[in-house]
Order: sequence, then C-alpha cells, then structure tokens
Amino acid sequence: MPVETIDRLGSELKTEAASVSSDVDAFFADLLNPVRDGRERLYEAMRHAVVGGGKRLRPLLTVAASRLFAIDRARALRVGCAIEAIHVYSLIHDDLPCMDNAELRRGKPTVHTQFGEAEAVLAGDSLHALAFEILSHPATHEDPWVRSDLVLELARAAGPAGMAGGQMMDLIAEGQELDLPAITRLQQLKTGALIEYAIEAACIMVKLPPDARTPYRGYARNVGLAFQIADDLIDHSGDEAAAGKPTGRDANAGKATFVSLLGEERARQQAQMLVSQAIEHLADHGEEADLLRAIGRFAVERDH
Amino acid sequence: MPVETIDRLGSELKTEAASVSSDVDAFFADLLNPVRDGRERLYEAMRHAVVGGGKRLRPLLTVAASRLFAIDRARALRVGCAIEAIHVYSLIHDDLPCMDNAELRRGKPTVHTQFGEAEAVLAGDSLHALAFEILSHPATHEDPWVRSDLVLELARAAGPAGMAGGQMMDLIAEGQELDLPAITRLQQLKTGALIEYAIEAACIMVKLPPDARTPYRGYARNVGLAFQIADDLIDHSGDEAAAGKPTGRDANAGKATFVSLLGEERARQQAQMLVSQAIEHLADHGEEADLLRAIGRFAVERDH
Repeated sequence: MPVETIDRLGSELKTEAASVSSDVDAFFADLLNPVRDGRERLYEAMRHAVVGGGKRLRPLLTVAASRLFAIDRARALRVGCAIEAIHVYSLIHDDLPCMDNAELRRGKPTVHTQFGEAEAVLAGDSLHALAFEILSHPATHEDPWVRSDLVLELARAAGPAGMAGGQMMDLIAEGQELDLPAITRLQQLKTGALIEYAIEAACIMVKLPPDARTPYRGYARNVGLAFQIADDLIDHSGDEAAAGKPTGRDANAGKATFVSLLGEERARQQAQMLVSQAIEHLADHGEEADLLRAIGRFAVERDH
Repeated sequence: MPVETIDRLGSELKTEAASVSSDVDAFFADLLNPVRDGRERLYEAMRHAVVGGGKRLRPLLTVAASRLFAIDRARALRVGCAIEAIHVYSLIHDDLPCMDNAELRRGKPTVHTQFGEAEAVLAGDSLHALAFEILSHPATHEDPWVRSDLVLELARAAGPAGMAGGQMMDLIAEGQELDLPAITRLQQLKTGALIEYAIEAACIMVKLPPDARTPYRGYARNVGLAFQIADDLIDHSGDEAAAGKPTGRDANAGKATFVSLLGEERARQQAQMLVSQAIEHLADHGEEADLLRAIGRFAVERDH
C-alpha cells in the first residue's frame, strides 16, 4: 500500500475515532441526565465511568463495520453505545477490591474508589441493564427481528459463555501455568466475544445470513487477539501514560500473557500476522472497508 | 367468597406454586449444565443461587397472569425464569459484604460465603445476561416484536429507573428518616418494578395495547406493596424459619420499614386493603383470574 494511502487512512481513522468518542460521550451524557430522588449518586457514578475516556474501540468497530453495508451511522452508534455500556460495566466490576482491586482506570479514580464499593456494584449493574434497553428500543432499528437478535447475541457475548465466563477463567488462571491455547481461549471469551459482537452487530442489522458472516467473524477474531497482544505489550513496557492505569499487574499477579509466553519480539510479530490475516478477510470489499483496515493496522502500532 | 371456594383456591395455588417451583428448578438445572474449561466454578455458583429455594413468586405471577389471556404455559414459564434470573442476580449482589453482608439466603450460605466475592459478582453478572438471552430467544415467542418488547420492559424494570435505582435509594436510606411516600417510592422501584413486570409480561405476550393494561398494572402494584409489607412483618416478627435468613436486619440498620412507620396492626390492615384493591382490578375476569386472586390473598397471610 502506498505511503500516501496509509497516511490518508491514518488521518481518516483519527477523525472518525475522535468523532465516535465525542458522540458516545454525548449519548451517555444525555441518557444519564441527573435525577433528584436518592438516585443522584448512582447516575453520577455511571457518568463518571462511561462519559469521557477510553478508546471507544468497540463503538468505533461497529461504526466502521456499518460502512460495509451502508448502515445509518446514528443507528450503528446506538448499538456501539450498548456494547460500550457492557464493556464499561465489566471494567467497573473488574476493578472492585474483590477482583483486580484497581484504583485507576482511564486516568481517573475507579468508581469504587470515588463513590464506594456498593455504588460501583450498582453502577455496573445499571449499565448492564441499560445496554439491553438501548438495543431493544425502536430507535435502534425499525425491524423487531433485528432488535431481538441484537439482544440475543449481545447477551451471549456478555454472559457466562462469553465475557463473564472469560473473567472467571482469568480469576482461576492466577498462579496457574496456562499455555498458549488456554490463554487464547481465555482472551477470546474475556475480550474477544464483545469485540466480535461489535462487528457481528453490523451483520445482524442488515440480516446477513449466518454463513455469509464468516469473513467478518474472521476479521473480528484476528483483530481482537491482536488488540489483546498489543495491550499485553503496553502492560509489559510499563508505559502507564499509554495504559491509563498501573502496568505490570499481570506479571505481578503471576498471570501468563501472550508476552510472557512468546517473548516481546514474537508477540509483536504474532500481532502483525493477525492483523494481516484480519485485513485479508476484507479482500472482497473496496474503500468501504478502509476504516476497518486502518483500525487493524493502527491497533498494533499503539505500543510504539 | 364461600369458604369452600377459598379452600379450593388455596389448594390450587399450592399445587401451581409447587409445579412452578419445580419447573423453574428444572429449567435452570438444564440450562446451567456443567462446563469443563475453568468456568465450572462460575456455573456451580449460579446453580447454587438459582436452583432450589425461594418462593418463585415472580414466575408464579407470570404463569398466573398468562391464564388471563390463554398464553401457552411453557412460554410464560420461560419469561418467568428470565425474571427469576434477574431477581436472583440482585439477591447475590445485594448479599455482598459491601452491600448487606448477608451470610444466609433461602436457608443456604450466600454465594460469596460459599464461593468467594469475585465469584459472586460474576455469578450475578452472568445471571443478569442470561435473563436477556432467555427472553430474546425465539423459543420464548415466535413474534420478534414481542421478544424485543419483553426485553425493553425488563431492562427498564431492572435498571437504574427500576430495581437497581431502588437499591441505590435503599443504600442512601440507611440512617435517614424516610416517610411513608418515600418508603413507598423506594419499594416500588426496588421490588415493585420487577413484580409489575411479571404481570406486564403477559400483556406484552398478547400485544395488549398500553391503555388496556391499566387494571393489570394496578393489580401488580397493589400486590407488590402488599408483599413488601408482609415481608416487613415477617422481618419484624423475628421468624427466621419463615424468612430463610436472619430477621430484624432493617431495624438494626436503622432503616424505616412499613412496620416501623405504621406499627404492626396498621401495617397488616394496609396490606389487607392493598390486596382487596388488587383483586378489584380483576373484576372483569372470571375463573381465569382465580390464581391471581389467590396469590394476592395468600400473600398477606404468610406472616400468620
């Protein structure tokens, strides 16, 4: 690919990423209007967690995937916000003292540090429910079949067969010697399921038959793993500014990561290879897939 | 109502309640089949919480309401199980050390006591997601509009404008002097929203227009409050066998309850009045509403 194309894609990605970030912020700021009956603190805690901050990778992926099928951007954004609500609830619960006991997230105090543990549990639970309220609202799609299927697949991706199950595997992993297949499976559930859903959601919105979704699932799976390896590399590098949280936690907890298993150099190569494979899955598409290609490419360059 | 009718209704209620309980158990025992990849403990914790125990009031209400409109019982039961999943997740999180710090629930150790706090957070989160997976699955209803609307209203009832919001109000209430309107509003969110949904779900399943739902909402609201007062009376009486958990907690925490505000006798009268009003809302129905009437009647007799 010529350098000027890469430059153009990079700048387009930057623009769309900024735009999605500010749209996601606006969506939640509007949705979580202050209330005045003893629930103020809950809404404050939710806003603290979900407005401002984060890469907004998942909404960005849904918006990018929606370009493949000419889906209305506002609708893709609503779906992206539902996914972000699930992602943020999982971060709030993951940060709790009984889980990772983290004090910093996205450069801010974690919800339980700022508001208290009970508030953090409830803020997470509330965002969890909100995600499904957003998806099933007619504003998300006029076709109820689409809304119902969006809900079904998000529930699967977030639940015990997806993200929550992956978090349980992660909990058990502490002090265990996981090998590469085990850590891959863990990450595919813990972070991969939701990233795959971010792409699958666009397929659902145009009622693409399941067997026509294979390339998009392939893209999502590869990009999801590449992102995880890039995260591990940042954690390993100790760059806390890039991470927005304390680094080296996995190593300190004795947890296996892609970097601890493969070493830094091979982990980086593996991420590059996954991104190339991801982009190959989009070979049948022209310019409308450029944003997805750019996301893959720049995903693994975050740690430089 | 003649004594023999009351006896017949009582025995019919007993039979249906036992049948719903065993059906709910079978549903979750089947759904939460053991897995073998590091998530065993999560599934065990979910089963511990959701299989065996509890009055299953919410599924029973949905099954009873489904008789009004001749809805297939198996479908009503699936919806009831989704509501029960939400109810049980909220109990698991409510019992956490940072919330009520309870060791006993439904006569068994709470999930965090038996499995650990992190496991309890994840088991609750998993049941939360499962509820929406159950509702949005085509087996629940063939009409996607119904599935999508079932999800929308459950998400509202469970989220910050419903149950989770009520729990936040309850958290704030500790040490505050709530009056009767405030405690009524708190309970309408904390426990009422989900009980109302258990009835509303039957209306959604037959696509009853919103303005035709008024009597059923009225029934649900009155019965929900009556149940809460009966719970307060049991808590006040100190009958731990009936409660399945330590009693007197609210009084010890300095929380206002219907009993602390009204006194035992007036609280009991209030519950009776609410049940009479609830039953009046069903005046247009014949025998098909008998189970709902019986639930109301026996609700307030639990504390004798």
